Amino acid sequence: MAAAMDYRELAEFALATARAAGAAILPHFRAQIDVDRKEGGRDYDPVTAADRGAEQVIRATIGRAFPAHGIEGEELGVTEGAGPCTWVVDPIDGTRSFILGQLHWATLIALNDGTRPRVGVVHQPFVDESFVAWDGVAQWRRHEDVRRLATRRCPRVEDALVASTDPRHFVTPRECAAWEAATGGARMVRFGGDCYCYTQLAMGLVDVVIETGLKAWDVQALIPLIENAGGAISSWSGQSCQRGGDVLACGDPDLHAAILRRIAG
Amino acid sequence: MAAAMDYRELAEFALATARAAGAAILPHFRAQIDVDRKEGGRDYDPVTAADRGAEQVIRATIGRAFPAHGIEGEELGVTEGAGPCTWVVDPIDGTRSFILGQLHWATLIALNDGTRPRVGVVHQPFVDESFVAWDGVAQWRRHEDVRRLATRRCPRVEDALVASTDPRHFVTPRECAAWEAATGGARMVRFGGDCYCYTQLAMGLVDVVIETGLKAWDVQALIPLIENAGGAISSWSGQSCQRGGDVLACGDPDLHAAILRRIAG
Repeated sequence: MAAAMDYRELAEFALATARAAGAAILPHFRAQIDVDRKEGGRDYDPVTAADRGAEQVIRATIGRAFPAHGIEGEELGVTEGAGPCTWVVDPIDGTRSFILGQLHWATLIALNDGTRPRVGVVHQPFVDESFVAWDGVAQWRRHEDVRRLATRRCPRVEDALVASTDPRHFVTPRECAAWEAATGGARMVRFGGDCYCYTQLAMGLVDVVIETGLKAWDVQALIPLIENAGGAISSWSGQSCQRGGDVLACGDPDLHAAILRRIAG
Repeated sequence: MAAAMDYRELAEFALATARAAGAAILPHFRAQIDVDRKEGGRDYDPVTAADRGAEQVIRATIGRAFPAHGIEGEELGVTEGAGPCTWVVDPIDGTRSFILGQLHWATLIALNDGTRPRVGVVHQPFVDESFVAWDGVAQWRRHEDVRRLATRRCPRVEDALVASTDPRHFVTPRECAAWEAATGGARMVRFGGDCYCYTQLAMGLVDVVIETGLKAWDVQALIPLIENAGGAISSWSGQSCQRGGDVLACGDPDLHAAILRRIAG
């Protein structure tokens, strides 16, 4: 086994890598699509030049710095590493928001040590703000500002502000029951957040996030962010959600446990 | 009648005023609420503090510069003017997004000449971007960048990207029929935008916005922005929507006409 990893240093590397990806993304943000050409094609595909260009930058940067590490990215698949460490990458989370020129999207980069994500970075290059987590630390950073993140107490759904990307994702009886358990009677439910649901939970301004159908790269960077800020995040059955699927995140672990019981009941 | 108004100058004044409001808003953005105290009653509520503080700044600034003008604001009501001109102001449009610490909110300022809004400004102080419209001009501005805005052609709902704040606002049979007319078969429907639905339509990245239950201050700043960018915006019956209510905006006036016919039919 190698010497203990310096996760702080790895978090700084992940942030620098996300910034480099941002430079590849920004020229495509709010660029006009040629709608006429698009009509020739098939269904709507939110993969953009920005997504692929950013993932190429991220893969090249990681490959140079950590050639023994694996990489799992949304756009370009899995590159196996020589050891247990894998970087899990979503070059643009919130592609629909990106396509509309809205603001709730970001680059997500996680480092998984083979057991769980240990480093997580969320970086929005247009707004130029970042959320960074490692070893018990969760931070927000912008320009010279750094803020330590902490979730807030909220033991009851009745007091909760809930964020979720799209209510139409909840279709099956099981999904509808989970939705009801997490949102029934809540003080507010807000749509359209993508990764900004979770960053704001880590910031102590959202109490519950419930989603379904996530991929590993949608969630791995968010797990250390939320856990290190004092929140809880898991699948709807209380297992690790690092491979994606159904996700429930709460700022208050007591509320998380209560909603899981309600979903199971 | 006074000399012809210089709407360009009034737009610059509106933008400067929105910036002053932003300085009053930002200290409250992402500020923690003391939830325990909140349950007790009135103490610090960041959105209320920001909303009122910003509207006071806007009212004082307008009152000094244009004492004969009226002001209609979300928070502090109507101040009648001596003439036909009224400033219509929403200090924070998208308060729910603001409360969660998300990004889809802005200050809206319109100048209505007594017949219709002639100047419109949308300013997001955290992101520091602005959308400014007067006399046939629609612009996006950020730092030193200025871009002329133009909506895009999209004559068919099947090709449209649709933005709306919350599907749960569409409840009655009439509302559900209008929703279906504007979104049925659309390529994408995205929630959670507030004023960023309309700014992105003016930018040519959203094709349709449909909403209901708006107030005058939610929409007046957006009307010149959309019309001057080449789009169409009206009530669902094709009348002026400057007093709020039901709103349909399309980047392509042909699509706007087609959806209005479908709603009427």
